[in-house]
Amino acid sequence: MTTPAAFVAVGSELLRTQRTDTNSLLAARLLRGRGFHLVEKRCVEDDEQAIAVAVRELAARAGLVLVSGGLGPTADDVTREGVARALGLGVHRYPPLEEALTARYRALGREVPPFALKMADVLEGAEILPNPRGTAPGQLVRAGQCTVVLLPGVPVEFETILSRHLVPRWPVQEGAVCVLRLSGVYESMVEARVAPLYERFGRQHVTILAGRGLVDLVLEAEGEGAEQRLEEMRAAFAAAAGADLYGYDDTTLAAAVAAQLRRRRWRLAVAESCTGGLLGGRLTSEPGASEVFVGGVVAYSNALKERLLQVPAAILAEHGAVSGPAAEAMALGALRLGAECGVAVTGVAGPGGGSEAKPVGTVHIAAVTPNCRRHRAFTFPGDRTAVREWATNLALDLVRRVVEEG
Amino acid sequence: MTTPAAFVAVGSELLRTQRTDTNSLLAARLLRGRGFHLVEKRCVEDDEQAIAVAVRELAARAGLVLVSGGLGPTADDVTREGVARALGLGVHRYPPLEEALTARYRALGREVPPFALKMADVLEGAEILPNPRGTAPGQLVRAGQCTVVLLPGVPVEFETILSRHLVPRWPVQEGAVCVLRLSGVYESMVEARVAPLYERFGRQHVTILAGRGLVDLVLEAEGEGAEQRLEEMRAAFAAAAGADLYGYDDTTLAAAVAAQLRRRRWRLAVAESCTGGLLGGRLTSEPGASEVFVGGVVAYSNALKERLLQVPAAILAEHGAVSGPAAEAMALGALRLGAECGVAVTGVAGPGGGSEAKPVGTVHIAAVTPNCRRHRAFTFPGDRTAVREWATNLALDLVRRVVEEG
Repeated sequence: MTTPAAFVAVGSELLRTQRTDTNSLLAARLLRGRGFHLVEKRCVEDDEQAIAVAVRELAARAGLVLVSGGLGPTADDVTREGVARALGLGVHRYPPLEEALTARYRALGREVPPFALKMADVLEGAEILPNPRGTAPGQLVRAGQCTVVLLPGVPVEFETILSRHLVPRWPVQEGAVCVLRLSGVYESMVEARVAPLYERFGRQHVTILAGRGLVDLVLEAEGEGAEQRLEEMRAAFAAAAGADLYGYDDTTLAAAVAAQLRRRRWRLAVAESCTGGLLGGRLTSEPGASEVFVGGVVAYSNALKERLLQVPAAILAEHGAVSGPAAEAMALGALRLGAECGVAVTGVAGPGGGSEAKPVGTVHIAAVTPNCRRHRAFTFPGDRTAVREWATNLALDLVRRVVEEG
Repeated sequence: MTTPAAFVAVGSELLRTQRTDTNSLLAARLLRGRGFHLVEKRCVEDDEQAIAVAVRELAARAGLVLVSGGLGPTADDVTREGVARALGLGVHRYPPLEEALTARYRALGREVPPFALKMADVLEGAEILPNPRGTAPGQLVRAGQCTVVLLPGVPVEFETILSRHLVPRWPVQEGAVCVLRLSGVYESMVEARVAPLYERFGRQHVTILAGRGLVDLVLEAEGEGAEQRLEEMRAAFAAAAGADLYGYDDTTLAAAVAAQLRRRRWRLAVAESCTGGLLGGRLTSEPGASEVFVGGVVAYSNALKERLLQVPAAILAEHGAVSGPAAEAMALGALRLGAECGVAVTGVAGPGGGSEAKPVGTVHIAAVTPNCRRHRAFTFPGDRTAVREWATNLALDLVRRVVEEG
């Protein structure tokens, strides 16, 4: 059995602006497999009472509460005081921290401003968790059955303290998670194929997450024999996924495409219209992309399609820039830039530019290799952003498939 | 005075996976200016008891609680039951909804599965909020001083119901928010320039949000005379921001660049190396990009830099591909693709490829117009993703500045 954990992100900017907390995602990942499962997360204001209420409520129902943010030097930073109030603990200035703080400022040629000295305040009975990346340390206190941990909100400091000073002290738990990553599929298609496996492994151990043209199957097992059961699940679901499976766990679709190309010692070039560079951007998101990716052309105008990709003017005149023949000609143009594989995307991303014959969402994708030419036509749902993301994902998917086939 | 509001996102996948809630961001934006301010948000599991606890705790301290998700047809969807438990309300099947549901399925040639009929369940005393984009309607119930609203988690359904059926019923409030958007700056530079204004307008009314090369200044005013005070703040902070200000509120940097180009009737072409297409992707993220953007070249390999951008081999040999002369030659090559403005980015995004002379993060950006050539060299901090985002933002910033100057 795993212990329920909760997460509190402190920061008014997380409530008032479009900024989102990401520390909780890292925490969920690191805690899993160490005997914890996240049951709740919250964002609260930089307010002593709000922090106190959140910690009090969560400490009553979780075995671990992580509190992120509000440990800095400004008047807004009141997490220490809020947690102290929640747990009925005192706060005192800790001379070794005060000295370290003074030394740190002196090294920068400055005196510590009096208000900044609060970063040397420690909760009664707290264990101090060193912060090699910043000024304010983490703090750990026990409150009955619950452990409450205060961590800085700056992501690199949060991650460093959590991964170095907290996670290693909790034993690795039997039980694990495996993610199967599929591309070129819809959620309902996958659901229908894997449904027969639910009875065998338990519906509650499978989560389906759908992106645009992407589906992740999150498989979980816990308790005794978990590893073996997870391995059986992995094999069964992988068989159901078939050729739509491109990788496991943290493997991105771009990385899977690069791995396929590397295996064949092929290089890829792109010709993009409606995606405007997003496909190239994804292909180069992984280190080492230059081994398999030469680059390409963003041919947003027809003039560039003709000039840099040698798309025949007759094709553009007869079929239009958004057409199968144009996509194939663009992919061939890309291949001729000095690659063994060329991929092209052309479409109507919207909101304008649609017609009855080619409504918004119409996208043609083509891929060519020395041995094959492949073209697919789609009508993607959603707004401009959605259509472009669908198109990028399905272009990567098509490359993956043609390179695998050789 | 504004009324405190709270938000609950229901969904185990928000706790177990890397998926994040975005409905709360939309809610915060729409509620602001209608007399509400978000004081807390939470993610809880698909669990009746967990939902009940969250709603009960929040209804005790907020005037409005929005609950998103868990209204679908599967066994996981227990938001109706959880809210009913929290507020001590009954749940009954509502015949008109049942009929609509049956008709909807019949139109698809199917019978309603018995379990899906729960989407016709309504909380005792609830007002039904029609859902034109999906199956499960929203529901609104009063609980003492608090209004609790249940909304589907699918973003388009959430947004439609919220913006059509809820927000219009609340009067527009005096008091408002204005965002000043700056590019090509660091947070500390901005902080130093605007600090003298804090005393005049109140530190608590200003939030600084820093991105990579981007800074937003969020200005707020409330109560009587708020609009005029906000206008004074806007003018004073805009003066302090000077030429670093590219727009207001929802204006993106890409949209600001497009507007500048449109004003001069110029077109832009790009030459990208380390950003791999991200710059083109951003420029085409806004509708109507084709008026001002012709496209460009992703010259990831040196061969393509020479072939498609006519970068002299001698420059690559003498200075290297990551250099000011290479960036300028690439920008000129882009301009010659048929544009009045060319911009180029070349750099070491990492993690490999760095050297003592050109460490990871070294990026050269150049922009050329008929009247000027501009080159800037940077060493950006962070990992591959960060370096590429910094580079994209600062390339857009450089274009904005050279086009403005003419």
